[in-house]
Order: sequence, then structure tokens, then C-alpha cells
Amino acid sequence: MPLPRQVFIAVIGAGGVGKCFLAQLQQLAKKLSQNPAAPTYLSLILLSTSKKSIHHADYRSLNNWQSELEASNTPPLPLPQLVEYLAHAPDKVVLVDNTSNQEIADAYPTFLKKGISIVTPNKKAFSSTYQLWHDIFSAAANGTGSGGYIFHESSVGAGLPVISTLKDLVETGDEVHKIEGVFSGTMSFLFNSFQPVNGGGGKFSAEVKTAKEKGFTEPDPRDDLNGLDVARKLTILARLAGLKVESPTSFPVQSLIPKELESCQSGDEFLSRLPEFDDQMDKLKQEAEKEGKVVRFVGSVDVPGNKVKVGLEKFDKSHPIAALKGSDNIIAFYTKRYGDNPLIVQGAGAGGEVTAMGVTSDFVKVLRLLQ
Amino acid sequence: MPLPRQVFIAVIGAGGVGKCFLAQLQQLAKKLSQNPAAPTYLSLILLSTSKKSIHHADYRSLNNWQSELEASNTPPLPLPQLVEYLAHAPDKVVLVDNTSNQEIADAYPTFLKKGISIVTPNKKAFSSTYQLWHDIFSAAANGTGSGGYIFHESSVGAGLPVISTLKDLVETGDEVHKIEGVFSGTMSFLFNSFQPVNGGGGKFSAEVKTAKEKGFTEPDPRDDLNGLDVARKLTILARLAGLKVESPTSFPVQSLIPKELESCQSGDEFLSRLPEFDDQMDKLKQEAEKEGKVVRFVGSVDVPGNKVKVGLEKFDKSHPIAALKGSDNIIAFYTKRYGDNPLIVQGAGAGGEVTAMGVTSDFVKVLRLLQ
Repeated sequence: MPLPRQVFIAVIGAGGVGKCFLAQLQQLAKKLSQNPAAPTYLSLILLSTSKKSIHHADYRSLNNWQSELEASNTPPLPLPQLVEYLAHAPDKVVLVDNTSNQEIADAYPTFLKKGISIVTPNKKAFSSTYQLWHDIFSAAANGTGSGGYIFHESSVGAGLPVISTLKDLVETGDEVHKIEGVFSGTMSFLFNSFQPVNGGGGKFSAEVKTAKEKGFTEPDPRDDLNGLDVARKLTILARLAGLKVESPTSFPVQSLIPKELESCQSGDEFLSRLPEFDDQMDKLKQEAEKEGKVVRFVGSVDVPGNKVKVGLEKFDKSHPIAALKGSDNIIAFYTKRYGDNPLIVQGAGAGGEVTAMGVTSDFVKVLRLLQ
Repeated sequence: MPLPRQVFIAVIGAGGVGKCFLAQLQQLAKKLSQNPAAPTYLSLILLSTSKKSIHHADYRSLNNWQSELEASNTPPLPLPQLVEYLAHAPDKVVLVDNTSNQEIADAYPTFLKKGISIVTPNKKAFSSTYQLWHDIFSAAANGTGSGGYIFHESSVGAGLPVISTLKDLVETGDEVHKIEGVFSGTMSFLFNSFQPVNGGGGKFSAEVKTAKEKGFTEPDPRDDLNGLDVARKLTILARLAGLKVESPTSFPVQSLIPKELESCQSGDEFLSRLPEFDDQMDKLKQEAEKEGKVVRFVGSVDVPGNKVKVGLEKFDKSHPIAALKGSDNIIAFYTKRYGDNPLIVQGAGAGGEVTAMGVTSDFVKVLRLLQ
């Protein structure tokens, strides 16, 4: 495989996804260095968390990053210095942003223009203002620019082939009519438990509590229930399908936080008061049941209608969205070529390992293109 | 997008898939030539069918291939001359093989070594002897060689992201435990009609007749019912997952052609006698029904067990394989990272447009790599 001889890597974020990515990177680096036809050496030259950072002025490899990071007291480089450091590296650089930081996302066009490639699960870069989206892809070599490459498979559905599939459909000239699915592992778990296809299910507030206990929600469950995470993913897909969506708040997004609880001071206060609204949720459930349906929290993009929406909808019990299990995501692409039966991708759409996998496979794509 | 300025294309096969590919190519060529940042000019320099062929010794573009092909009386170039013609083209060449021809497949290593890239839905190249598989990928730049690139997404599941997904899983270090699914549009249609989840369904022989009338089978339905098509696809997936499968006949493949009918002289004779065996099929159906299950024709790869098999199996009615519709394919990847709930890809796995789409998206990937 004609891969580049040496590629420098800078990793920001060493939390859940970051740690898994570093482990996958290590395995990949070993494999690539042993390719007898064309060995490639991957060299980690910077690693930073929100609190500290390690790198060497002479760009030598961080071979023992765990201990070096532990021993470090250096705060993260300010962004302009980070850009300069990477821009002057003596070989190609890939920046792996494993954060969900808006400030770093805002700097993507600058990195790209300097020839630095980026792989990331950071949704904010692609779902904030349309201007940022435009600036990123007019700088990127896989947009209309001549800078670095950028890939972000894990920004929707983690490692599931969602973005690559949509890009393939669009690039080969298919007409995407509708994209619909369950885009949040938390929402999937909540509604699959709240109203299973075969009946049963608990009170909504109890399911939220269980989901939090199982680690399926953000530390404050309101960050899932407000629908913004799903709205960001839909923004990305809609833009890839050709719609000029201004921001994730420029279309209807249903929040599952009752108005009366918007002013709660803490997640705990919110959770303790949520049972007051169980009757409302039960009513929705019963209405759906009467029609032989179940309630699910979905997002959809109507491409010809130029409409994006996020919220609760009812689905026939035989519908693939109704039959989803656990915290799985499902994404259905309805297109001209695929006709009535959509192209469906389904599986775990959250979690460190599968999110990192999307990042690592993007990283491999960049390596190939950087040859 | 930094694509190459000019790329030569040779297309073999202008039947169902070939015609759709040529239409998609035309659309793509127009788009790429209009990219203001870096226009790319795609130039069709050879087009051949099983009966005739067109090309010009000076490599000028076949701008009016429809009329040129119609007017041509030239038989296809013998393979050695085709290789020479393409190898001497004054720019990069991509060969698009839209046939299912074994002889052309056997020549892939030769093309690749000469730097010619290949995109193809031709299953034979990847599912015949292990030696051919080895020769192809030791020549290809995206194998361990330094020749042209080769991609074959459409050799399994047509345009569905099956091969790319499996490659991503393997390359990023996931452990694939099992791959299971319905890999034939014909078999999908037959069994979804023969035993729908909600009961009913006709006699097996009647469903085969209907499938043939709807154009869902090969001209001779025995070419679907013998299971070889599915066995070829499983061979490809098993090899990608790391198993050294010698050939599509080196593992158990259940044929749905009753022994007594193997000697039928024609497809018509076969179809007229098939009803004699409806009782056997009905018995299978009733047995499954008693267990609350349905019968489906599936293929599976057990990676750690080094086992591949193809044939009838029973599935719970709630299983995604049971719930399949129409002639859709479904492919489930069970891996270490994805845990109990597999990564699933589902949708139309046959048909000119979607097969060509897989070829076209592979073609775009090669264009990027050829920059």
C-alpha cells in the first residue's frame, strides 16, 4: 500500500473517545510500520486535554504519552500557537479533535488552510453557523479548497457508515428524498424502554432515571432531552444533502423538557420533578397504542420540501424504527434509486469504542489521500 | 478538490449495470469538469460488449459512444491487446468491468501490475481461487503492491456499504465475530413471499414462477436456487474478514434444486416439475411456524470458528432477517465493539441503478487516490 513514510499526529482530547482512539491508533501504527511493501511511521507529536498538554519543540514522538501527560504541568497551547506549531512540522500533519469544543471547531478553517488535515467526531464544527460550514469546506481539499482534508464520520451515528453513505449517494447522482431515523442512543433507549413494541414499559421519568444510572445520558439528562444533540446531527445530514440549514435552531425541534421545568436549577431538581409530567407522556403512549403504534423520538430531513424536524412521532409496530433495540441508532435513506424500501444503517451510535472507530477509519482515509 | 486533470476510462460491458454506469459517469464527468477549483476531465477511451468494441488508436474520447458502438463491427480486443492498449495510454487509466466474466477477472493482476486501476461488480474476480485473490491484492496499490487500485463494493449487496464497512471494521482493529444475512435479492423475495412474518404465502414453486415473471431471477432460476451466487458473496466477505477460503465450493452450500431435478434439460422443464417438491417445502414452513419462526435463505461467516455456510435457517419472527421486505438484502456484522446488537446494513442489493452506484462511488474513490 503506497502510504506516506511518516505522518505526524496531534490529538486533542483524551477522555472517553480520545482514550479509545489512542489505543486504536497504537494498534494501527504497529500494523502500518510492519508493512513490508511500504512501511508508514505514525508519530504522535502533540496530545492535549482541557487542562494540560504535551509536545516537544523538535517534533519528536511522544512515545510514552501516558507518563508524559501525567507528569506534565503545561497548560494547553493557545489556538494560534497550536496552529503555528503544527503548520511548521517537517511532514504532513493530521489533527484529531476528540472534543466537542466550539472554539477549536471555529479554528478548523485556519488549520485546513495551513495544510493540516482534520478528523473528528466534533459535531459543533459542522452544525453551528452555515458560515463555519462554508469556511471549512472551501478550505478543505475534499471540499473546494486546496488545504488539508477533513472527515467527520463520527459526528453522526458514531462509527456507523452514515455520512460516507450519504456522500456516496449524493456524489453518484442519486436523488435523496428523505432521511429519517433515531439519532440518539439516549432517546433510543428511553423510548424502546418506555414503550416496547410488545407492550409494557415503565413511567417516562423512571426510564430517564434508569438511563442516567446506566450511563446512557449526559451527566445532566436535560442535555439529551432538549433535542439539541439530535438537531445538530440533522443539521449535518441536511447540509450534506444540499440544504442550506442556517443552524440547529433554525428548524422545529421538540424538547422533552416540560416548560415548567425549564427553570430547574440542577439536573437533580429536574429529575425529582419530572414524575409530575408522567401523565402527559402516558397519554401519548396510549394514543399511539390505540392506533397500533409506538412513540419514538426521531429526526427527519425532507430534501425536496427543504424541511428538517426533530421530535416525537408515532410508528407502526412493524416499522424498522419501532423495532429498534437497546440504545441503537437507525438511519433510513429514501432515495430515487432505492425506491420504496430505504437503504438502512443500524447499530450502536454512541460509546467510546465505536465513536473512536469512526475517527480511526477517517484517519486511515486521510493517510491514503496524503500519500 | 485536488483531482487529476484527466483520467482515461475503459468500460467493458454495456448491459443492465453497464448502461446505468455510463449514465452515472456522464453526470459525474459533467460535474467534475465544472469544478472551478480543479476541473477534471474524464475521457472514455474504450467501450466493449461481448460482441463488439470501440476505441481509437490515438486515445481520443468516445464522445458519441452510443452511435459509435451501434455502427461498429469490430469484435472485442483480445485481452493481451486490451492490456497493451490501456497500458500505453498517455494518462492514468481506470478499467470498469461491468461483466461477470471469469476470463477478464483472471487478467486483473496483469492490468493492476501495469498501473491500471479497476472498479467492478464482478464477483468472479474475488470469489474464485484463493490464488487469484492473492494475485490481485499483491499487485494492487490498496493491497500490498504498487500497481493500480482495485475496488469492488458492488460485488456484495450492490451499492449497499457492505465491503467498505467490513474493511473499516477490520482496518481499525475491531474483531469480527460473525457476519450473517440475506445476500440475494431473489432468495429474499422468494422467502419473504413464501413465508411472510404475518402468515400466508404461496407454494414454493408458485413463488419461484412469480419471481421469474417479475424479472427477479436469472433467465434460468436454477442459477439462483443453487446457492452459488450467495456462496460467492460469502467467500468475498470471509476473505476480507481474514479467512483463507479456497473457493465458493469449499464450504457447505445448500442448493434448493431437488436432486431429482438436477438432470432437467431446461429451466422450463425444471419449473414445470418443481411443484412435485412443494410438500417438502411446506413441511419446512410448518416446522418453523410451530416454533414461532420463519424460514430464510441465509449465509454466514463464523470468523473465530473459521466456518462459512449457506442455506436455509429458521429465524424468530422478531429477528431483523425475518422482517425483511421485498427483495431487500440485509447484512449484520457482529463484532467485539458492537456487542450484542450488530451493525446492520439493509436495502436493495440488486438492480442496475444501485449496482452501478456502487461502481460509480468506487470510481470516485479511485479518482481521489489517483490525484
